Amino acid sequence: MPNHRLTLEYDGTGFEGWQRQPEGHRSVQATLEEGIARVTGAAVRVVGAGRTDAGVHAEGQVASASFETRLAPPALARALNAVLPADLAVVELASAPPGFHARYDARSKHYRYQVWNGASPSPLRARRAAWVRRPLDLAAVRDAARELVGNHDFASFRAVGSRVGTTVRTLLRLDVLGAPGELVVFELEATGFLRHMARTLVGTLLEVGRGRRRCDSMASLLAARERAAAGPTAPARGLTLVRVQYD
Amino acid sequence: MPNHRLTLEYDGTGFEGWQRQPEGHRSVQATLEEGIARVTGAAVRVVGAGRTDAGVHAEGQVASASFETRLAPPALARALNAVLPADLAVVELASAPPGFHARYDARSKHYRYQVWNGASPSPLRARRAAWVRRPLDLAAVRDAARELVGNHDFASFRAVGSRVGTTVRTLLRLDVLGAPGELVVFELEATGFLRHMARTLVGTLLEVGRGRRRCDSMASLLAARERAAAGPTAPARGLTLVRVQYD
Repeated sequence: MPNHRLTLEYDGTGFEGWQRQPEGHRSVQATLEEGIARVTGAAVRVVGAGRTDAGVHAEGQVASASFETRLAPPALARALNAVLPADLAVVELASAPPGFHARYDARSKHYRYQVWNGASPSPLRARRAAWVRRPLDLAAVRDAARELVGNHDFASFRAVGSRVGTTVRTLLRLDVLGAPGELVVFELEATGFLRHMARTLVGTLLEVGRGRRRCDSMASLLAARERAAAGPTAPARGLTLVRVQYD
Repeated sequence: MPNHRLTLEYDGTGFEGWQRQPEGHRSVQATLEEGIARVTGAAVRVVGAGRTDAGVHAEGQVASASFETRLAPPALARALNAVLPADLAVVELASAPPGFHARYDARSKHYRYQVWNGASPSPLRARRAAWVRRPLDLAAVRDAARELVGNHDFASFRAVGSRVGTTVRTLLRLDVLGAPGELVVFELEATGFLRHMARTLVGTLLEVGRGRRRCDSMASLLAARERAAAGPTAPARGLTLVRVQYD
């Protein structure tokens, strides 16, 4: 059966996350599967590169799915976008090799986290950014971020109760852009992210930025391998899956 | 009674425009008046610089209102933001001279119109931009835009049925930023805008960009002084009131 690779953009506000949920809960996966079924008549199961949580957005989520269709990729993408709701779109569609698996084949993922650091709330940024009123100490945040980059055991930054073989990941990049009092943007790139890892890294760094945690405490925090040692999970609405990298 | 000047940001999606409507309709004006009443106990009537239509956003709408309060401006702004809904915020608040009137005293207004010109829909831009799939001829759009700048009778670009003393306005600036296939941004600045004028200017220029109207036809279109001569009113969601200028 022909395999397909779909690149997706979505506004996560109206979804209870990527993963198919029990009846009555709206997920990106189920919405996409229903769209494919409407266009092709095929009952398919799609695989997503990242199982984004409720409220998390995507500019470049990647999904793989095997199904028969008489439509060429551009026509298929247009047909899907014609039936998908306004908060989900296929921005790229291509034939994929038979064995392509969006999750297992992913080499790295790039997430972006936005924080609105202005003195008053920003309604036009509220869907895409968390709000921190007090100006952040970004020099301290950047010092701490540097300690986190590299190959580490990120068990301290993993959601309580999540199970996974190894908690070692390589954080390739953790850049902090912007200025205090303005929009602050965290760019996170890793070979893989544990559940809630991106948001817990940001939540912890925001504590550093607020002066509630020392910027030189990241090494001991990593060594603790205890979720309770890290900061809170930053709100989902600030997070966007920007890109998934394959070989 | 002390007079106040409030600068407002709002996401227009959930409002039926600026202006107070009959019971059961949600307007920015009524929402703000209720917020002021909750904080100060005063029944006030606020005046907005621009009466934005349903779905139109604002980064810098300005309102004036006279009421008694024991709170200093920064504390009053914080108190208002604590009671206002997430889609409306006071981003600046200052004491104003007794006679200050947000609408009559405005010298010019700056509106921004965003068009997403990508091949597929963009869920993350959908609330703030209209979508035009076919790549626009921006050279033609810019040629036409240049003909519109200046002091003209804009009767052709005024909503049918709207009444106003004179339809002459000075369009100070109509810049078209961006590139075909990407986000295209119209920056419009004028001494005043007739009802639907910003959106009708953009709707007409988009016809030029699609090759459906000649870029050298703007002078005759202005001379026609007939709404039917201009293009369609572009969708409200693409428009944002950026700034109101006072002396």
